[in-house]
Amino acid sequence: MRLLFIGDVVGRAGRSIISAELPKLRAEWGLDFVIVNGENAAGGFGITEAVCDEFLAAGADCVTLGNHAFDQRDALVFIARQPRLIRPVNYPRGTPGRGANLIEAASGARVLVVNVLGRVFMDALDDPFAAIERELEACPLGVGCDAAVVDFHAEASSEKQAFGYFVDGRVSLVVGTHTHVPTADCRILAQRTAYMTDAGMTGDYDSVIGMDKEEPVRRFTTKLPTSRFEPASGPATLCGVAVELDGQGLALAVAPVRIGGRLAEARPGFWQGS
Amino acid sequence: MRLLFIGDVVGRAGRSIISAELPKLRAEWGLDFVIVNGENAAGGFGITEAVCDEFLAAGADCVTLGNHAFDQRDALVFIARQPRLIRPVNYPRGTPGRGANLIEAASGARVLVVNVLGRVFMDALDDPFAAIERELEACPLGVGCDAAVVDFHAEASSEKQAFGYFVDGRVSLVVGTHTHVPTADCRILAQRTAYMTDAGMTGDYDSVIGMDKEEPVRRFTTKLPTSRFEPASGPATLCGVAVELDGQGLALAVAPVRIGGRLAEARPGFWQGS
Amino acid sequence: MRLLFIGDVVGRAGRSIISAELPKLRAEWGLDFVIVNGENAAGGFGITEAVCDEFLAAGADCVTLGNHAFDQRDALVFIARQPRLIRPVNYPRGTPGRGANLIEAASGARVLVVNVLGRVFMDALDDPFAAIERELEACPLGVGCDAAVVDFHAEASSEKQAFGYFVDGRVSLVVGTHTHVPTADCRILAQRTAYMTDAGMTGDYDSVIGMDKEEPVRRFTTKLPTSRFEPASGPATLCGVAVELDGQGLALAVAPVRIGGRLAEARPGFWQGS
Amino acid sequence: MRLLFIGDVVGRAGRSIISAELPKLRAEWGLDFVIVNGENAAGGFGITEAVCDEFLAAGADCVTLGNHAFDQRDALVFIARQPRLIRPVNYPRGTPGRGANLIEAASGARVLVVNVLGRVFMDALDDPFAAIERELEACPLGVGCDAAVVDFHAEASSEKQAFGYFVDGRVSLVVGTHTHVPTADCRILAQRTAYMTDAGMTGDYDSVIGMDKEEPVRRFTTKLPTSRFEPASGPATLCGVAVELDGQGLALAVAPVRIGGRLAEARPGFWQGS
Ligand SMILES: [Fe+2]
Ligand SMILES: [Fe+2]
Ligand SMILES: [Fe+2]
Ligand SMILES: [Fe+2]
Ligand SMILES: [Fe+2]
Ligand SMILES: [Fe+2]
Ligand SMILES: [Fe+2]
Ligand SMILES: [Fe+2]
Repeated sequence: MRLLFIGDVVGRAGRSIISAELPKLRAEWGLDFVIVNGENAAGGFGITEAVCDEFLAAGADCVTLGNHAFDQRDALVFIARQPRLIRPVNYPRGTPGRGANLIEAASGARVLVVNVLGRVFMDALDDPFAAIERELEACPLGVGCDAAVVDFHAEASSEKQAFGYFVDGRVSLVVGTHTHVPTADCRILAQRTAYMTDAGMTGDYDSVIGMDKEEPVRRFTTKLPTSRFEPASGPATLCGVAVELDGQGLALAVAPVRIGGRLAEARPGFWQGS
Repeated sequence: MRLLFIGDVVGRAGRSIISAELPKLRAEWGLDFVIVNGENAAGGFGITEAVCDEFLAAGADCVTLGNHAFDQRDALVFIARQPRLIRPVNYPRGTPGRGANLIEAASGARVLVVNVLGRVFMDALDDPFAAIERELEACPLGVGCDAAVVDFHAEASSEKQAFGYFVDGRVSLVVGTHTHVPTADCRILAQRTAYMTDAGMTGDYDSVIGMDKEEPVRRFTTKLPTSRFEPASGPATLCGVAVELDGQGLALAVAPVRIGGRLAEARPGFWQGS
Repeated sequence: MRLLFIGDVVGRAGRSIISAELPKLRAEWGLDFVIVNGENAAGGFGITEAVCDEFLAAGADCVTLGNHAFDQRDALVFIARQPRLIRPVNYPRGTPGRGANLIEAASGARVLVVNVLGRVFMDALDDPFAAIERELEACPLGVGCDAAVVDFHAEASSEKQAFGYFVDGRVSLVVGTHTHVPTADCRILAQRTAYMTDAGMTGDYDSVIGMDKEEPVRRFTTKLPTSRFEPASGPATLCGVAVELDGQGLALAVAPVRIGGRLAEARPGFWQGS
Repeated sequence: MRLLFIGDVVGRAGRSIISAELPKLRAEWGLDFVIVNGENAAGGFGITEAVCDEFLAAGADCVTLGNHAFDQRDALVFIARQPRLIRPVNYPRGTPGRGANLIEAASGARVLVVNVLGRVFMDALDDPFAAIERELEACPLGVGCDAAVVDFHAEASSEKQAFGYFVDGRVSLVVGTHTHVPTADCRILAQRTAYMTDAGMTGDYDSVIGMDKEEPVRRFTTKLPTSRFEPASGPATLCGVAVELDGQGLALAVAPVRIGGRLAEARPGFWQGS
């Protein structure tokens, strides 16, 4: 199975490159399943139903979120009717929407997608390790699902790496999101889970984590807000990670994806010319 | 001028690859100046005089530090007699050692090296933006020095990127350290400063940020310490960033460096076969 | 029913005043139930079995803990055989000991004691609000118990106050611990739960939160550790809160208690001369 | 000299009790100098020029601020023309307004007032210890001023207490603000500086730190914002600390002040009936 995960789409710049590139990538690479993190898709903060639909129409099978999940308050409503939109699983009981879902690929394969929030340097939710344990007990890889992907939305590299080992051999891919910078450490762990500390954001990198850089620089130097944060509007880079899975849902190959904009391009060599 | 910056060396595994590879790289790539971040070199925490000397002997011109600068208490003493060992510049007035220094390359070029600590999600020191401003006023690029490198030791990608823009055009390279994960975002900013959010660590990546993974995983799941953190001892990856500078000390080319161990290898194409 | 809660006992100075004063107070005030927070009792960090026994012998019915619960590693063992020692309830599943227990007073009254850790500015555990909800469902005041006391061990005043309102009318007393400073805001909330933001510590107030002041001042000014923290050894103040309950376990009167040492003395007027 | 310091005034409820009580207290107690912390005076967030003038008209000689200093953006402008409004001294160089000022009492006595922000669990500013050192060198007690008061606006009790010892004997009073809860630990330190960990807020205590309690409780339990924070509007308590100074500006007596609202009343016995 061929999986593509795309990191935090930021604002219009990020959405544009999704619309422009994802349909082509889906065809060119013969993708079976695509996940897009959309927590910053609407003006940098949260997601609207229209934007979520746009991602699904462009070729995403599923959209994940993060600490900005509900910045657009409508999401608390429309998430209930959108089973392909996944919010962090460790929000308090009673939070609208799903933190994990089993989604059918076009091929019929069943993919478990879980979105989990880390706790180090973030607003505290319930234990992400206990949360994933529960989800994997309920739906074990190879039994309840054909592939399992965790979008671990977290700040600290230590928590992300520990989380990766914790689920090694039990999920297909653990990919970090939230820092908005792609890491160069994707690899296959000992028990064959694909791992990458952060997918990076999909947006304009001539920015501070996707936002126009003037205001962030001003806030760091003056310690005072002057204006609102606005998404940067230059050419975007689509960032993510590509994984080839075997019949048991474990990783055969993993590679970074970076297309467009200001970062060095990266495409999975194992799917080129295929 | 050819610069190599190597990220946080962790424990014996990290030190071994420095000794094995750095002399070769220095010759092969015709390096003019090498900086090694050594804050985790001694058993994962701090640095000893012997380790610092080992790095200098292997081909480093300069060693930088970070929040672990003085974990080995001896460093408070020997740093006074080692002008090539640079601790964070924004420690309180009266802290032993130097936070910036002008170091002569073998070629005679004068390289300003500054180590700065970020403040987001870290123990608070004084303003890193004001600190670099003072250093650059005292020693402007092209006037007081032929090249200027800032090792910005920080957690948050937002602070690192904002810092990069803040000094764009005024230094040769801003490279982040501290997260122990290499980022895939190195680039040349608009005013020709080379930038990379994190150099990554130099150590065994089959670990949690360089440490044996059992204890970190246990602490995240039990919230209780069971034993001490110990550096992982498997094959290390040397991680860093390579920069080619022009006569004004501004960047002509930048590329990631990853050699050995478990990460995908990366070498600067612009120096291959030269 | 007459309840006395005594805040974080710090080191030998704190233990001495417990031994000297608690037996007298128990008799003089005709106390029915006494709780002592012992998380800093052993050298400032954690608790030993001998110290716990000492508190019970001096007149405590129950000992609570906090973020320092297991600083003395033996506590992970002896807590299993000591039903009167209560650790934070929101530690991960599988943590040794109890986070809540129903303890019989000499009078036969059943007192539910719960220890909960806050999450703001603290290492993240699971939701304290959800945790207390579960405990109160399992053992409602007036049904499963005759009185219920929550030691909410937390840093932020906002979280403590919100927690108080959350359980108002459902417990007898919510008392904060952890800041080591007594607050002057004890009161009876609208539904008759007694509330106090922090009980204060029991120890030497000529100190930094109970510790010799030289090292903390040095760390704040130099940002470097020089030596270990040691409990201050001057005359201690016993700090806490006194509550008179009615037959339903709700508060009739509440008053601060401060005896000995450097703080202005406070004793519950409603029990004087009785 | 008779000094009164009044803690963070929150919203209309807090302002009302200032207007109603301060003129009477000034006369009744024969106050020489009054300081009011006004960082939450305008709707809970920041201060306007009208509110600042209102405090001065009611009998304040000086108004201090905190982390909410510039929540009302106008303050960045009018603070320049209001020498009696003091913002945190450790904001970056170039911040409008003054962080310290020498203010003449009606008696002609010169009172140095300094507002300092702590750094533990707060947005990081520059070193508060170094900042106060500079101010006291520039204007030593007994030489440059007849009295010196520091409003140390900070979260952590450890930082507040360490700060108190750091300036002991060099200022008349160190009083903490920011937690919005009065502490019961006011005392005179060894070198005769009066100290209190927190003055408490001046506002409605049937609230979460001065704000209507529904929204804070909801946010803690749901982890989602539903509406804005609004100041609570019930009867307020005026909270602060009273200090009697000798001819050298050192403390002869210190006592808490709590008037009105839901907290137990406290008035300085040493000024009653005088
Ligand atoms: Fe994001
Ligand atoms: Fe995020
Ligand atoms: Fe490091
Ligand atoms: Fe570090
Ligand atoms: Fe404590
Ligand atoms: Fe504690
Ligand atoms: Fe305040
Ligand atoms: Fe504040």
